[in-house]
Amino acid sequence: MMELNVTAPPAGSPPPGKEQQAAGVGILLQISMLVLSFVLGHVLRRKKFYYLPEASGSLLIGLIVGVLANISNTETSIRTWFNFHEEFFFLFLLPPIIFQSGFSLAPKPFFSNFGAIVTFAILGTFIASIVTGILVYLGGLTFLMYRLPLVECLMFGALISATDPVTVLSIFQELGTDMNLYALVFGESVLNDAMAISLYRTMSSVRSHASSGQNFFMIIVRFLETFVGSLSSGVGVGFTSALLFKYAGLDIDNLQNLECCLFVLFPYFSYMLAEGLGLSGIVSILFTGIVMKHYTFSNLSENSQRFATAFFHLISSLAETFVFIYMGFDIAMEQHSWSHVGFIFFSILFIGVARAANVFGCAYLVNLVRPAHRQIPSKYQKALWYSGLRGAMAFALALQSIHDLPEGHGQTIFTATTAIVVLTVLLIGGSTGTMLEALEVVGDDYDGPIGESYEGNNGYVAPSYEEGTSSGSRLKMKLKEFHESTTSFTALDKNYLTPFFTSQNDDEEDFGEPTQDKRRGGFRGHG
Amino acid sequence: MMELNVTAPPAGSPPPGKEQQAAGVGILLQISMLVLSFVLGHVLRRKKFYYLPEASGSLLIGLIVGVLANISNTETSIRTWFNFHEEFFFLFLLPPIIFQSGFSLAPKPFFSNFGAIVTFAILGTFIASIVTGILVYLGGLTFLMYRLPLVECLMFGALISATDPVTVLSIFQELGTDMNLYALVFGESVLNDAMAISLYRTMSSVRSHASSGQNFFMIIVRFLETFVGSLSSGVGVGFTSALLFKYAGLDIDNLQNLECCLFVLFPYFSYMLAEGLGLSGIVSILFTGIVMKHYTFSNLSENSQRFATAFFHLISSLAETFVFIYMGFDIAMEQHSWSHVGFIFFSILFIGVARAANVFGCAYLVNLVRPAHRQIPSKYQKALWYSGLRGAMAFALALQSIHDLPEGHGQTIFTATTAIVVLTVLLIGGSTGTMLEALEVVGDDYDGPIGESYEGNNGYVAPSYEEGTSSGSRLKMKLKEFHESTTSFTALDKNYLTPFFTSQNDDEEDFGEPTQDKRRGGFRGHG
Repeated sequence: MMELNVTAPPAGSPPPGKEQQAAGVGILLQISMLVLSFVLGHVLRRKKFYYLPEASGSLLIGLIVGVLANISNTETSIRTWFNFHEEFFFLFLLPPIIFQSGFSLAPKPFFSNFGAIVTFAILGTFIASIVTGILVYLGGLTFLMYRLPLVECLMFGALISATDPVTVLSIFQELGTDMNLYALVFGESVLNDAMAISLYRTMSSVRSHASSGQNFFMIIVRFLETFVGSLSSGVGVGFTSALLFKYAGLDIDNLQNLECCLFVLFPYFSYMLAEGLGLSGIVSILFTGIVMKHYTFSNLSENSQRFATAFFHLISSLAETFVFIYMGFDIAMEQHSWSHVGFIFFSILFIGVARAANVFGCAYLVNLVRPAHRQIPSKYQKALWYSGLRGAMAFALALQSIHDLPEGHGQTIFTATTAIVVLTVLLIGGSTGTMLEALEVVGDDYDGPIGESYEGNNGYVAPSYEEGTSSGSRLKMKLKEFHESTTSFTALDKNYLTPFFTSQNDDEEDFGEPTQDKRRGGFRGHG
Repeated sequence: MMELNVTAPPAGSPPPGKEQQAAGVGILLQISMLVLSFVLGHVLRRKKFYYLPEASGSLLIGLIVGVLANISNTETSIRTWFNFHEEFFFLFLLPPIIFQSGFSLAPKPFFSNFGAIVTFAILGTFIASIVTGILVYLGGLTFLMYRLPLVECLMFGALISATDPVTVLSIFQELGTDMNLYALVFGESVLNDAMAISLYRTMSSVRSHASSGQNFFMIIVRFLETFVGSLSSGVGVGFTSALLFKYAGLDIDNLQNLECCLFVLFPYFSYMLAEGLGLSGIVSILFTGIVMKHYTFSNLSENSQRFATAFFHLISSLAETFVFIYMGFDIAMEQHSWSHVGFIFFSILFIGVARAANVFGCAYLVNLVRPAHRQIPSKYQKALWYSGLRGAMAFALALQSIHDLPEGHGQTIFTATTAIVVLTVLLIGGSTGTMLEALEVVGDDYDGPIGESYEGNNGYVAPSYEEGTSSGSRLKMKLKEFHESTTSFTALDKNYLTPFFTSQNDDEEDFGEPTQDKRRGGFRGHG
């Protein structure tokens, strides 16, 4: 429809012909902006100019083009073609980004910090959401800011607690930092997306059923339903793919295309399966990514492994860059309710407080359990606190909230979220390099006490509890049980899961001393 | 919009929630069908069952699921989600297929048969379109079939003259055949898409301006405008990309992702540039593919070359399989005007006649010029005639014609085209193996007289006109001039274009004796 009719001159049939040509021009502009972003990002990285990371650059490009389009105020058709449908966003842009997050997790540092990451991501995000929500609600009560109902405050708290790994991690990679700090920041920001989205949806469904008088217990059940259901379906699809590739015998040279086609289809299958079941596709595809990288990946032929890594990296880079451009553009184009500048200002203050509660609180708990030589040092905690950029997921959920919330509340939340996204991306993104240097956690071969102790660890948490048992409180015992259970997960993985789901000959290689190449592969990550 | 709201139970907001879940289920079904198609195609190929090629299998799967969906007659929401928008087809499915056609052209046999291929594709498709159109018009006049105006007959002739390379070529690859026959079939079916679409659009614009009384001369001008304009823009973008990658210095190891991102964006840029200019994106992207493979590709780093080849192969395989599934599904779902079975029957007869006029006529002209040892033998002509499958492009144009033509004429053309596509894909696709064996052109190391003479030829048409000058008519002289101009094009390419657009060290390798690997790469083609 948009394609073949374009030659028909305006005289013949003006509306369709013009609209189609506008579509072409619109997409052309988008591609040009993508190319420009990539080139700009490359040049800035070359010049070691860390004050404008790639994501900020993309955002600014979108912003500038949006402002220009707004000023020139041409045909509305181009504008409508730029404001692409949210459907496109959720169907084509978000899945590859989230999948790549899971897929590019470096297994060794991730699993050796598993307990801490889960604590930060699950408990910490929960704390941050509640704290933000309550503070915003109290701010409304005390006339500091625009007043929202409590449930909507909690929805805002949930969506704004989803941090974005892209920008900070690309700088971490450039400057080099400790592997464990990297794993903490990365793991936390990846998993907290899943947590934030589950919380948001739970709150959203609580809101729409407020009249039927549900109790707190039901809310918890519903949250667990969404989260555990999505997690299980994602993990299930991942394991299925592992078994398929283990036994299908596709790792012959001339079947590479078939192998890759199937491999590429599984994540999307997982996403849509969860959606079809009424669960969260995002959470599902994230865990499919983790499982597929950990098990399925080693069943592929070597060529396909190389291809799959590059493929998902490519697709997610394109999607990510596009999302940042789009955010910039959208901010310039949309009608925002700027009347509530106070709301934005205090929100930023509150999310800083909430993130502090998350990071320092959880770090305290983690340190209670960890032996002395594996404590998370204060400067790591500060770096983690500072790395709380908000990005695509917060934006997507805020976009969603426009439809979910009536009376312009969604619009207020959306405006505040986009403002927070832009400010954090530009300010935090631009100053991360300076921050890392100030905290003295920079350096490619940084050999802090933690980094050292991990090297001989083979990726597993050594069950060395000799130190630190002196102050044994009840809480501590509980936490230790949890810690042990994560330790036993890694043992389960090593002894049962990996042999069952992968070809046997890859076992040793997968978990032995990481080779230079492996580590690099893991660290490549985003951007 | 389709993602996050799914948990909201039907009680809260029934229409959106249900629709979104249906969308998930619909896409899930589509992915399952894709996976099934790939697996089925693989199993059949393993079993060497050539009567049901992959494309036919996909078509049948779509057909069966469509019939089942029709019988079960569930919620219309699933149905509407299956009938995806044409926009999706033209924006996301067609471009990669067409680009891959150009990109996977094996340069050596393509350029050594350049004159013949261009003759078949440009002149031959023109002949076939006109012959089909006039026969259908005459059939209407004599009450043999449904009567259409002449211009619409010519539009139908144009769209039905676009042959599809996928199925036949995959069988060619399986069974092995002479390189030159392969190049002829492939080159012809790739280029005639461009020709068919230009002809269709020219006729379409003639139709909408019938009242303003245009003469034949203007039609030719408009056709040349579309064709040459699109070709130039495609070639221009291709050359730009070649220069960019030659001088940007991106072929360093850790810039692979950037390199691939940019490389992947260029084809789409070309497509949208042409659309924005009011030209044909399909024609443009095809030539961008040819140019990028021939020049830009050798400027990439080795890793990116391997990745780009696999990437475009993957994307086009997915798109192609999806198109065949969709065609099958659509045929089962759409309301067809089956009242005109006669139209379908005679159309098939006529396109057979038209293709005979195309192939045997053009082969006669080509043979007039070629020296005795390079004549296209009669059995090659028959194989070429038989390989006239209709596929995605004919379907796409027919879909377009529903909008272009009033009073159900478009609907009639669409029904006839889908029927022709299904019949040719199933019948011709299933019998190509038998046909190739009957014509005795099968065998991986087939060493016919032509195959032999080419080996020592270095990919260039040797200007050896000693034989055949005896019957020198004027026509022959003209044809020879054309032949010489294509020869001089290969010289131009060797002496100027390749050194200018590619890094110098690749020259020799590119045009020297083809290595085993190169040939295999060329033959891999479609999937």
